[in-house]
Amino acid sequence: MTLEEPAGVEHLTKAQCWELLKGQVIGRLGVIYAGHPEIFPLNYAVHNGSVVFRTASGTKLAAAMPHAEVVFEVDGYDPHAEQAWSVILRGSAQEIDAPAEPGSLHLQPWQAGTKNHFVRINALHLSGRRFQVTEPDIWTTPLSDPRRASFE
Amino acid sequence: MTLEEPAGVEHLTKAQCWELLKGQVIGRLGVIYAGHPEIFPLNYAVHNGSVVFRTASGTKLAAAMPHAEVVFEVDGYDPHAEQAWSVILRGSAQEIDAPAEPGSLHLQPWQAGTKNHFVRINALHLSGRRFQVTEPDIWTTPLSDPRRASFE
Repeated sequence: MTLEEPAGVEHLTKAQCWELLKGQVIGRLGVIYAGHPEIFPLNYAVHNGSVVFRTASGTKLAAAMPHAEVVFEVDGYDPHAEQAWSVILRGSAQEIDAPAEPGSLHLQPWQAGTKNHFVRINALHLSGRRFQVTEPDIWTTPLSDPRRASFE
Repeated sequence: MTLEEPAGVEHLTKAQCWELLKGQVIGRLGVIYAGHPEIFPLNYAVHNGSVVFRTASGTKLAAAMPHAEVVFEVDGYDPHAEQAWSVILRGSAQEIDAPAEPGSLHLQPWQAGTKNHFVRINALHLSGRRFQVTEPDIWTTPLSDPRRASFE
């Protein structure tokens, strides 16, 4: 695999995508707000077959939410298989009542302040892909990579 | 710090934001394409004071690029300080000539195929924030967290 011709991309099944989504806790939500693209990193949970997160009233994110079209992206790197992957979920965002046991969702709010609004993404389209990387360092960071961390 | 009242958020200076950007290699680009929000995870480099990445012609990403307004997000977690951070860069995307020494940028393309287009984000606005997390696990993943990985 060279820089110009990386190995083939494996397209993931919906079941594989959900498994990967369940294994992570941080994703990035993309919305259009006042005509501008916005990205919000946030802590999420998979609950009853959909992605759920918390937000506060009065934020841009909350303002963009009522039935807004959103894209939600989660990615990761498997250091054993040296494979990177990403999952993209498209759908609409909808405020929901707080789950009966919100604590069980481990939805730590991202920003300071009260985040009493629970939002669910109704998935309309889910896709994912995975591929081998020959340079694992592109998927690890100086802080999270034990190999690097031990030298710095 | 409780779930309802997380610790205060520290707003980062531009210099701190650039330092954090230089320390990572994967970010997420948000664009509006055909009226829809899109997120592209990609490998980037900081080159001559701006963010540069590669893409292929014919992709949605390339189609969205000519002077498109974009948002670029990078985040990370410092396990020693137990701090999470994110940096948001807003600007316009512009195709540039390949740098004289593209290899020096370590711009491994994200998807298979020839990625001969170099794109620079002209930063119009840069902001970042950092905060303490009491549950480090929300910022680590089962695969990247050595503590978890050793038990699974």
